[in-house]
Amino acid sequence: MKKKLYKIVSNETNRSKSNLIFYFFIMTLILLNLAAMIFETTSNRSIIFNQFLEIFELTSIVIFTIEYLIRIYVSEYTHPTSSKIKSAVIFIFSGFGIIDLLSILPFYLPLFITMDLRFLRILRFIRFFRILKIGRYDKSIHLIGNVIRDKKSELIMTGFISLIIILISSFIMYYVEHPHQPDKFSSILDSFWWAIATLTTVGYGDIYPVTGIGRFISGVIAIIGIGLIALPTGIISSGFIDEIRIKNKDKKCPHCGKDLI
Amino acid sequence: MKKKLYKIVSNETNRSKSNLIFYFFIMTLILLNLAAMIFETTSNRSIIFNQFLEIFELTSIVIFTIEYLIRIYVSEYTHPTSSKIKSAVIFIFSGFGIIDLLSILPFYLPLFITMDLRFLRILRFIRFFRILKIGRYDKSIHLIGNVIRDKKSELIMTGFISLIIILISSFIMYYVEHPHQPDKFSSILDSFWWAIATLTTVGYGDIYPVTGIGRFISGVIAIIGIGLIALPTGIISSGFIDEIRIKNKDKKCPHCGKDLI
Amino acid sequence: MKKKLYKIVSNETNRSKSNLIFYFFIMTLILLNLAAMIFETTSNRSIIFNQFLEIFELTSIVIFTIEYLIRIYVSEYTHPTSSKIKSAVIFIFSGFGIIDLLSILPFYLPLFITMDLRFLRILRFIRFFRILKIGRYDKSIHLIGNVIRDKKSELIMTGFISLIIILISSFIMYYVEHPHQPDKFSSILDSFWWAIATLTTVGYGDIYPVTGIGRFISGVIAIIGIGLIALPTGIISSGFIDEIRIKNKDKKCPHCGKDLI
Amino acid sequence: MKKKLYKIVSNETNRSKSNLIFYFFIMTLILLNLAAMIFETTSNRSIIFNQFLEIFELTSIVIFTIEYLIRIYVSEYTHPTSSKIKSAVIFIFSGFGIIDLLSILPFYLPLFITMDLRFLRILRFIRFFRILKIGRYDKSIHLIGNVIRDKKSELIMTGFISLIIILISSFIMYYVEHPHQPDKFSSILDSFWWAIATLTTVGYGDIYPVTGIGRFISGVIAIIGIGLIALPTGIISSGFIDEIRIKNKDKKCPHCGKDLI
Repeated sequence: MKKKLYKIVSNETNRSKSNLIFYFFIMTLILLNLAAMIFETTSNRSIIFNQFLEIFELTSIVIFTIEYLIRIYVSEYTHPTSSKIKSAVIFIFSGFGIIDLLSILPFYLPLFITMDLRFLRILRFIRFFRILKIGRYDKSIHLIGNVIRDKKSELIMTGFISLIIILISSFIMYYVEHPHQPDKFSSILDSFWWAIATLTTVGYGDIYPVTGIGRFISGVIAIIGIGLIALPTGIISSGFIDEIRIKNKDKKCPHCGKDLI
Repeated sequence: MKKKLYKIVSNETNRSKSNLIFYFFIMTLILLNLAAMIFETTSNRSIIFNQFLEIFELTSIVIFTIEYLIRIYVSEYTHPTSSKIKSAVIFIFSGFGIIDLLSILPFYLPLFITMDLRFLRILRFIRFFRILKIGRYDKSIHLIGNVIRDKKSELIMTGFISLIIILISSFIMYYVEHPHQPDKFSSILDSFWWAIATLTTVGYGDIYPVTGIGRFISGVIAIIGIGLIALPTGIISSGFIDEIRIKNKDKKCPHCGKDLI
Repeated sequence: MKKKLYKIVSNETNRSKSNLIFYFFIMTLILLNLAAMIFETTSNRSIIFNQFLEIFELTSIVIFTIEYLIRIYVSEYTHPTSSKIKSAVIFIFSGFGIIDLLSILPFYLPLFITMDLRFLRILRFIRFFRILKIGRYDKSIHLIGNVIRDKKSELIMTGFISLIIILISSFIMYYVEHPHQPDKFSSILDSFWWAIATLTTVGYGDIYPVTGIGRFISGVIAIIGIGLIALPTGIISSGFIDEIRIKNKDKKCPHCGKDLI
Repeated sequence: MKKKLYKIVSNETNRSKSNLIFYFFIMTLILLNLAAMIFETTSNRSIIFNQFLEIFELTSIVIFTIEYLIRIYVSEYTHPTSSKIKSAVIFIFSGFGIIDLLSILPFYLPLFITMDLRFLRILRFIRFFRILKIGRYDKSIHLIGNVIRDKKSELIMTGFISLIIILISSFIMYYVEHPHQPDKFSSILDSFWWAIATLTTVGYGDIYPVTGIGRFISGVIAIIGIGLIALPTGIISSGFIDEIRIKNKDKKCPHCGKDLI
C-alpha cells in the first residue's frame, strides 16, 4: 500500500495513469489557489463568493497537508537511505520538501502568531515549480541553464557595466535636473529610478528631463541602453550556438570514422 | 469552361496572366474592405460617404460569395478525389475553405439572427492570409516556421519563466504598493497588468510604483525583462544558424570525401 | 586647372591634402546648416542672431551652388564619356548629382513660386550622405547592406506578420475598448496607433486599455512584440554570421592547398 | 616594510589574505561613500544623521588620501623604473593614478577655490573601476572589449544611420506637428527629443504626435527602431561567435593534419 502511494505521488518520467491524474489534480489545485489569491484582492465581492473562497482555501490546505504527509511517509522510496527517519529528514530538507512545507506553513502560523501573514501565502505558489518536472521540458530548462552558466561572467560583467552607467547618469542627472524639477528629481534615489526606467527602455513617463542638457544625457543613456540590450543578447546567442557545437562535437564520419569538426 | 475557371482561381506557383489579374483583384478588394471597416468607425462621415460604404460592402460580399461558389465548383481540380461531392466537402472543410466561408458568413447571419454581429466582419480579414500564397515568400515563412518549431520547447520554457516572474512580482508589488496607491494597485489583477507592461518594457505609465521598495522591485523586473528579451532572441538566432547548417548538410566528409547523411 | 579642381572635389579613397580640407569644409558647412535650421525653429531669438542666420544661409547657398557648378564642370573626369555635355548630363542625373541639386533648389524655387517652401530645406540635409564616402566605412555599410539584402524576404515576412498582428489586435481592441473609452479609442485608426505603440514596446501612455479583457489582449500583444523583436534580430544575427562564413569560404589550407570548409 | 605595504595594496591576481582584506575594505568604503552621496540629496534628514555623514566623509577622504600616498610610496614596485621619482611620476599619470587623485581632489579644491564643487564628488565614484581588477572578470571584460573593438566600424555605422533617421524624422515631425501642438513640438530640438525617445522605444509619453500623419511617421520610426535594435544585436552576436572561433583556431587541417596559423 505504501509502494502504491509512492507510485501515485512520485515524479518519475514514465508516469502511470493514477500518477498522471494525481499530478494534474495537484497542478490544477495550485492554479485555482493562485486564482483565489488574485480574486481575494479584488473589491465588490459578494458574501457568498467570499465564503466560497474561504472554504476552497481551507480544503486546499487540507489536501496540501495530506500530500506533504504522504510525501514524508513514502520518503524511504524517494530518498532511499539506511533508515526511514533519515529518509524523512532528507526529504524535509530537500528543495521540494522545503517548498511543500513553505506552501502550507503560512496557514498554520497564525495559530501561534498574531501577525498578519496573509502575504506569506505567496509561498504556496512556489509549489508551481513542481510543474518543471513535466519531463520533456527538463531538457530545455537544462539547456537554458547551461547557456546562462557558461556565460555567467560575461553577463555579470554586462550587469556591472550597466550599474556603473546607471549610477554615473543618476548623479549627473540629479545635478542637472534638480534645480528645474525639485519635486521630480528630489534626490539621487529619484534620479536612479529615472535612470533604470530609461536604460531598460521602459519609460513610464513619471520622471523625465525637461532641460536641454538633461534631454541630451537622457538620449545618450537610452542609446547606450540599446547597446546594453544588444550585449546580453549577443552573449546568449553565442552561448546557444556553442551548446549546439558542443553537442555535435562527438560526431564522427559514418564512412571513415574520423572526427567531424 | 470549368477548367478555365479553375486556372483563374488556382493558387499555383507559376501563374497565368488571367490568374494573376484575378489574384490581385481579390487582394485589392480585401484591402479596400479592410479600409472600409476602419473608416466605418471614424466619426464625421457625410451621408453620401456612408451610402458609398454600404454599397461597396454589398458588392464585395456578392463578389466574395461568387468566388466561394466558384471554388466549390472547381474543387474537383483543387482537391481531386473519386467524386465531385467528396471534393467539395474536402474543400469546404479545408483551411482556406473555412476562411473563405467565415469571411462571408457574418453578412448572411443577421438575416437569421437579430444580434449585432458587425464585429464578426473582422473574419473577412482572415482571407488576407491568402496573400501568403504569393510564392516566393513561401520559403521565408517556411524557414521562420521551422525555426520556431525547432525551438518550441525552449521558447515555451522562456514564456513559462516569464510567467512565473510576472506572477511573483505581481503578488509582491500588490502588498508593497496597495497601501500607498489603493486606487492604482487596487487588486493583484492591476498589479499583474503593471508587471506585464514593465517586463515587456512597454511602460505605458498608467501604473507605476511610488515607494522606494516598489521602485527597487520594478527596476529588478525591468532588468530581468531585458534578459527575457535576450533569451528568445538568442534562441531564435541559434535556430536560424542551425537551419543554415542543416541546409548545407549535403557536405562531404573532409577525410574520405563521401556524402554525410 | 580643371584637373586641379577635380582633384579637390573628387571622392576618391586616397585623398590629397587639399581634397581633405575641401571635404571637411563642406561637411562642416552641412552640419552648421543643419544646426541653423534647428535654431531657426526655436523662439526667443535676438534680431542680430536672426540676421546672422540669414546671412549664413545665403553664404552657404552660394558655396553649395558654386560646388555644384564645379562638379558639373569637372564631370568629364568623374563621369568620363565621349563628350563633355554627355558627362555633365550623366552627373546631373546621377545619385549625388540629384542630391546636390535638391539641396540648393529650395532656395531658388521661391524666386518663381510664391508658396512657403521652407520645409523643403530639409533636402539640403540629404547632402550629408556624402559623408558615407569617407572610405573606411564603405566596407561596413556594404556589409550591413549585404546582410539586409540577403535576408530581405525573411525581414519582409516578419514585417508582414507584424502588420497582420497589429491589424487584428486593432480591430479586436476597438470593439473591446470603444464602449469604455469612446474618446481614446474613437476609431480603429486610434486603435491602430495603440497597437503600434504597444507592439514596438514604445508605450507613450496616451492610449491604453482599461478593461480586463483589453488589458489581457494588450499583454498578449506586448509579449508577441518581444517575439517580433527577437525574430529580425535572429535573422540579422544569422545574416552577419553567414557573411563571415562566405568571406572565409575561399580559404585553403596553407600546407596541402585543399579547401577549408 | 615597504615591500609589505606593496603586497597589501597591490592588484595582483593571486592575492594574499591581508591584500584581500585591504581590497574589500577599500571597495566597501567606496560603496558606503556612494551611499552617503545618495543620502545627502534626500530631504528630511535628522541633524545627527547629517553630522554622521560629514564625519564619515572626512574619515573616507583621510583614508583615500593615505592610500594614495602609499601607492605613490610603493610605486617603485608597481611601476619599476631606474629611479624612485620616475616611478612615482609614472604612477601619478597612469590611469589608476589619475583616478585615485581625481577621487580625493574635489575635497581639497574648496580650500583654494570658493565655487560649489560638490558635484565633483562624483569623481570619487570613478575609483569603483578598481573593482574590475578582481581577476576572474578580467577575461570577460577583455572579451566584451574585443568584440566591441572588432565590430567598431559596423556599430559606428549603425549609430550613424540611426542619427540620420532621427534627424530626418525630427525635421518632418516638426513641420507636421508644430501647427497642432505648438507647445509640445515648439522647436526641432523638441522634435529631436521625441525622435530619440521613440527610436529607442523608451516612449516617456511627454511628447507624442496627435495628427494622423504624425502618428503614421511615429509608427514607421518605432518599427525602424526595432530594426536598429536588431542591427547592433546581430553585429555583437556575430562578434561573440567570431571570438569563439578565433579562440578555437589552433585547429588542424582536416586533410593533412598540420596546424592552421
